[in-house]
Amino acid sequence: MNVKLENRVQHYRTVWMEGDVVRMIDQPKIPHSFEILELHDYKETGMAIRNMNIRGAGAIGATAGYAMAQAVLHAPKDDYGKLVGYVEEAAGYIRSMRPTAQNLFYAVDKVLDAVYGADNPEAAVISAIKTAQGIADEDADSCKRIGEHGEKLIKDGYRILTHCNAGWLAFVDYGSALSPIYVADEKGKKVFVYADETRPRLQGARLTAWELGQQGIEHKIIADNVSGWIMQLGMVDMVIVGSDRIAANGDVANKIGTYEKAVLAKENRIPFYVAAPTSTIDLDSKSGKDIPIEERDEDEVLYVRGYCNSTGKMEKVRVSPKDSHALNLAFDVTPAKYIKGIITEKGIIKPNKKSIAKLFK
Amino acid sequence: MNVKLENRVQHYRTVWMEGDVVRMIDQPKIPHSFEILELHDYKETGMAIRNMNIRGAGAIGATAGYAMAQAVLHAPKDDYGKLVGYVEEAAGYIRSMRPTAQNLFYAVDKVLDAVYGADNPEAAVISAIKTAQGIADEDADSCKRIGEHGEKLIKDGYRILTHCNAGWLAFVDYGSALSPIYVADEKGKKVFVYADETRPRLQGARLTAWELGQQGIEHKIIADNVSGWIMQLGMVDMVIVGSDRIAANGDVANKIGTYEKAVLAKENRIPFYVAAPTSTIDLDSKSGKDIPIEERDEDEVLYVRGYCNSTGKMEKVRVSPKDSHALNLAFDVTPAKYIKGIITEKGIIKPNKKSIAKLFK
Repeated sequence: MNVKLENRVQHYRTVWMEGDVVRMIDQPKIPHSFEILELHDYKETGMAIRNMNIRGAGAIGATAGYAMAQAVLHAPKDDYGKLVGYVEEAAGYIRSMRPTAQNLFYAVDKVLDAVYGADNPEAAVISAIKTAQGIADEDADSCKRIGEHGEKLIKDGYRILTHCNAGWLAFVDYGSALSPIYVADEKGKKVFVYADETRPRLQGARLTAWELGQQGIEHKIIADNVSGWIMQLGMVDMVIVGSDRIAANGDVANKIGTYEKAVLAKENRIPFYVAAPTSTIDLDSKSGKDIPIEERDEDEVLYVRGYCNSTGKMEKVRVSPKDSHALNLAFDVTPAKYIKGIITEKGIIKPNKKSIAKLFK
Repeated sequence: MNVKLENRVQHYRTVWMEGDVVRMIDQPKIPHSFEILELHDYKETGMAIRNMNIRGAGAIGATAGYAMAQAVLHAPKDDYGKLVGYVEEAAGYIRSMRPTAQNLFYAVDKVLDAVYGADNPEAAVISAIKTAQGIADEDADSCKRIGEHGEKLIKDGYRILTHCNAGWLAFVDYGSALSPIYVADEKGKKVFVYADETRPRLQGARLTAWELGQQGIEHKIIADNVSGWIMQLGMVDMVIVGSDRIAANGDVANKIGTYEKAVLAKENRIPFYVAAPTSTIDLDSKSGKDIPIEERDEDEVLYVRGYCNSTGKMEKVRVSPKDSHALNLAFDVTPAKYIKGIITEKGIIKPNKKSIAKLFK
């Protein structure tokens, strides 16, 4: 059953921590039901990342930070060295859950640094919790500011294409690609969104459409194949997508299909923007070639999950022959040359080495 | 249950007529079961076109021809004028089933001309049946020759991307885009096919993958979003697709998403070919702008059909919020400039007005 949330932002973040329990909106159930998942230790929380109960750059980052805080809370407290050993093991485990999302590594390292900066177990616990909370708060705050900067690019009446889900469900709050749209809507601009359904996991059809519905933003879902055609027909004014990792030269890793949309936008002279907090930028990746791309289980392609009227449950249906296999690459890299600008919490920058380096000075 | 067909080509055409009954492979059931549908009059046969029990340029054409023959068979025989009136009404009905596929109009007109050329009911019946059978035979023969011409473009070890299904299921036999691959395979060349799944109706995942499996061709299914990325990675040597209508200037209407693949192929310097019999060419469409593009029911996007293990039946699952809508454009137009060549039964031509006009001299 769909749950209409009034003033959702005041009610729920996508992920949060109470005591040593991490709570999150269980995303595979959306849009068919709205449920909160509870995770009691860093291993459960890590598995929620791997199984994509939570996904999206910032949401993964905040969750990884909370998982690290859980590890510190549950670590042996009789000896600081033992605590560090336990937490380092947890860090390795959490890092192994998803390979592409930069925010995951950013958050794990930040909490780990906080632990290293403490000199006794109690100080480590206090510092880890504070840091994890800080990562989540920073994420929400950055997204809010991304919305304010990005809104300036949106003219009244714009028809905006987006891919996958880079809304509040992908972050702690507000979102990246959708945040400027929400701000534009608040300011009274009329905005229409085409949501690519985003196979294989259909984050566009399921999550973006649901989010836009909650926010009251006019939208239509399209098969991923349709976006090029509606660009050619002049039905799209701009494209905004999120990112899972941005290299130092401005190449952008994001959900598979992003590269296609970027090339088509350029071919049709439509501005293509990436919206992401600076925590998504990985200066150690010199270009897109250095970004590891996750390959996921072929069953995500061979089957489709959805709500089945005849059983009243979520079901997986097979959409392919029994003997066929699939190649399921989860992300792609869009070279910087296709990107008009990157909308960060610090402003809109050009996707090049110099502009990116300046953000970190 | 999957049915493994040995030497399928000798066993089944995709559609055929026995007496006044049209029989066809029921395509929405593939790959989960193999069933033959029987259609007893032109209205039933027309509805099978509309509901996509049969689809694909040549298969629609042959079916439309047979439907016209059924109309002639069932028309009043006491008066030639009455027969013509009945058949003209049927022609209007059959033409209204799908708007984009040129072969449908080609076949309806051809049988209608045969009826006009007769001067009594018996001659009309004989001529209509012969013409309908001729359309089907011509389609199979053209596709065979497309295979022979196209095979020369394929080098040993090629990895070929295709979109939707333009194999034997889309024609009376052999297919257009897949026919060169089958000939290359027969000649001992190693070929690997990436099959775009082709949302919303998943003809690639369901039909192309199944056909390739029956033919023993190595392949993998990919989400439509993946094709651009594997082109960028250098994993694709050529692209071959079919067509539903080719304009006089070489613009090509084909399954939605084709335009995206063509732009990406050009961007990555990968040759992009269209394979189609000359019956797909519509000289009355001067350019792609003249080709009507079908918009289909949004439920094809909002739901996905597939085989459900838990019920042991085909089920529709909802993959979108209850309140969201979809835009479901079924075809797009690829401008000629993106196309390296059109593989016809008369040889491989450049997609321009002059080369196309020459085919009809």
